[in-house]
Amino acid sequence: MNSVKVALIGFGTIGTGVARILLEHKDRIARVCGRSVELVRICDKDITRSRGWNLPDGLLTDDLDSILDDPSISVAMELIGGIEPAKSIILSLLKSGKNVITANKALLATSGPQIFEAARGYGKTVAFEAAVGGGIPIINAISTALQANELKSLQAIVNGTCNFILTQMEERGTDYAAAVREAQRLGYAEADPSMDVDGTDTVQKLAILAHIGFGANVNWQDIPKTGINTVDAIDISYARKLGYRIKLLAVADSTSDGLELYVSPTLVKRHTPVSNVRDSFNIVKVVGDAVGEVYFNGRGAGEMPTASAVVGDLIDTVLGRTAITFQTLKLWSQERYSRVIKNPADIWGKNYLRFQVEDRPGVLAEIAGILGKHDISIASVLQPESETDGEPVTLIITTHESREGDTLAAIQTIDTLPSVRSQTVRMRMEE
Amino acid sequence: MNSVKVALIGFGTIGTGVARILLEHKDRIARVCGRSVELVRICDKDITRSRGWNLPDGLLTDDLDSILDDPSISVAMELIGGIEPAKSIILSLLKSGKNVITANKALLATSGPQIFEAARGYGKTVAFEAAVGGGIPIINAISTALQANELKSLQAIVNGTCNFILTQMEERGTDYAAAVREAQRLGYAEADPSMDVDGTDTVQKLAILAHIGFGANVNWQDIPKTGINTVDAIDISYARKLGYRIKLLAVADSTSDGLELYVSPTLVKRHTPVSNVRDSFNIVKVVGDAVGEVYFNGRGAGEMPTASAVVGDLIDTVLGRTAITFQTLKLWSQERYSRVIKNPADIWGKNYLRFQVEDRPGVLAEIAGILGKHDISIASVLQPESETDGEPVTLIITTHESREGDTLAAIQTIDTLPSVRSQTVRMRMEE
Repeated sequence: MNSVKVALIGFGTIGTGVARILLEHKDRIARVCGRSVELVRICDKDITRSRGWNLPDGLLTDDLDSILDDPSISVAMELIGGIEPAKSIILSLLKSGKNVITANKALLATSGPQIFEAARGYGKTVAFEAAVGGGIPIINAISTALQANELKSLQAIVNGTCNFILTQMEERGTDYAAAVREAQRLGYAEADPSMDVDGTDTVQKLAILAHIGFGANVNWQDIPKTGINTVDAIDISYARKLGYRIKLLAVADSTSDGLELYVSPTLVKRHTPVSNVRDSFNIVKVVGDAVGEVYFNGRGAGEMPTASAVVGDLIDTVLGRTAITFQTLKLWSQERYSRVIKNPADIWGKNYLRFQVEDRPGVLAEIAGILGKHDISIASVLQPESETDGEPVTLIITTHESREGDTLAAIQTIDTLPSVRSQTVRMRMEE
Repeated sequence: MNSVKVALIGFGTIGTGVARILLEHKDRIARVCGRSVELVRICDKDITRSRGWNLPDGLLTDDLDSILDDPSISVAMELIGGIEPAKSIILSLLKSGKNVITANKALLATSGPQIFEAARGYGKTVAFEAAVGGGIPIINAISTALQANELKSLQAIVNGTCNFILTQMEERGTDYAAAVREAQRLGYAEADPSMDVDGTDTVQKLAILAHIGFGANVNWQDIPKTGINTVDAIDISYARKLGYRIKLLAVADSTSDGLELYVSPTLVKRHTPVSNVRDSFNIVKVVGDAVGEVYFNGRGAGEMPTASAVVGDLIDTVLGRTAITFQTLKLWSQERYSRVIKNPADIWGKNYLRFQVEDRPGVLAEIAGILGKHDISIASVLQPESETDGEPVTLIITTHESREGDTLAAIQTIDTLPSVRSQTVRMRMEE
């Protein structure tokens, strides 16, 4: 068989990893594909910066047209990230007859419908294992091996930066700011980590998982999210006292009246597989009606793990498995059966609430009264002795199951009380 | 498109689960496959026993020929287990033009080459996700999503019965016999659990994983194995003191001078994903050169989890993904690149040794001397005070890395000493 010619667009960290596998392990890839896979073009706007190794002559270019106009290139990998120009490039690649592989979760979560519609129109495919969970083959598992199941729920830690920060806070007793600095120093967090710590990255990945696993045609901006930037050292230590760890969870839960979706820092019971995941590792727990609980755990980011997923997609595309799966899944298609998304206000759950309050009699009664009026019953109260007279004190309340709309309304009212000194911190609690 | 007609052979626990999914979730399976999948025949030698639910008339038969002679049936699932008649039946099914799905690890580990050769000869496929790890899609991950990687190593707990017994011993402090009885009472162990507890089941699964993941054309009987039937409550408690848990591990480790394969009760460091796996759950840890560590964890047995894997294979077979993967993997084929298997005697590792010895001076020196002569250096010694004068005492020695051949030779010599009162128990130790 003829060799397959492929191109790489975006030569940053992941692109470098992909090029490394394709150039250094050419024989292995050829053995798997039954034919040679030739990386013939790498396109990046910066073609002068050294990537620490010597590329064969003529491979690197800043001329995208040299890929678009070359009909011998049948597969292109988009590893630029972000919405534009990635979106226009992918649409052009599909139009010019190339199958596309992408690691771009922000783009898929935002413009999935348009991109998949275009791919179908041109008779091409889009593969995106690397968009969620880095090297963990979770998209593949949900799209193929677990297809006999109706998925009941999914819980995932899919942002390694946040999990690293939370692990630092728990294991080293550092505060949030110090943990962020350490994550930046070690390369786990970017100079501006806001997309990670505010939950945006996690909620975009959840939108993709919810679509594939549960048929949810949901815009990521409609999924409620809280980031980890409200988590304080005191929460970590109270969570431990209560027998929990704090994790930034993406949750999809299929209920009789719709699919519940949210991202929130969550108290997860210690000694469970999800709470045991440390540092920058990711985990996805999937519950299917037949298979029960299955856990997928590994490195959710980084040059080589993510490159493993991209090249896995490339192999699937070359072999034709992607064409079958792509056709079967009817991604973001009108034809596809679509799940009702539950109004976030109607989601029930247990909560952990931390208040900063004046240290005087009656404050607890006042807060408890407001919770009660909103049908929220209290499971436990922790109120440490105040150390300094006159300083505000911390009050922690955990609740039984309550309706999200009631919980948020109660917090809003509580936050207007003169005795409440700062915005209430709320996290979910999982069993 | 026409519907696909399929048959089930073997109507025990897993067969019942498969029938349940295919009959009760017909719409869902049709939606995934893009065509209806009709279960038209269930063959079992016992057609009178009630399976607790009413099958449509005419489905159940004891006449295998009604499947073999029906050319409209294109896929058959063999869920009988054991070598014969399962092997003859699979060969007949392939010959009569049917693609085959099987959960039969004993058969694949024993007659894989013959079965896959026959399938290729007839232009048919064999799929076997359910043969290893029940519902965990580990065969799929290794055969497809992780194909960009060269696998470096694999560690697996793939026998739920053994893991349940070890968990009982650790968490309830019961002895081995009581834990086995409890496993039997709860249906986790069969009346005769010997194939599980002696490591046979685990080593057969390892042979399959080693073939797919590492290109090892190995006969399962050539892989060294030790079962958990030598594990005593005292080992569990000493392991805990040393910071470990005991797990029955299947290990494949790719080294520069060949592939190391073995099954052994193993001391695994506490607080690692593998040691954290409790009860009847399974876990497979795969290390790839690009992806790093990935863990797959879930229910490794049982009616519905295993049925999930069988129906997953069925969907892949109907959609044509199996045909691609089957062709690519060249399973047990002459064409396939085959890995050198290391002589088990040349495998290096740390060991945990438990001796029953006379309680008199000089015994430790004698044993230490023999270990030293075999180039085995001691890492730690635990010798509890004897409680009863004259009774033999337990002596536990952990070693630094030593060569397996030397370790076994030393144990053999030690076991001939008059002061040594019973056969030495040896387990491996993992970092």
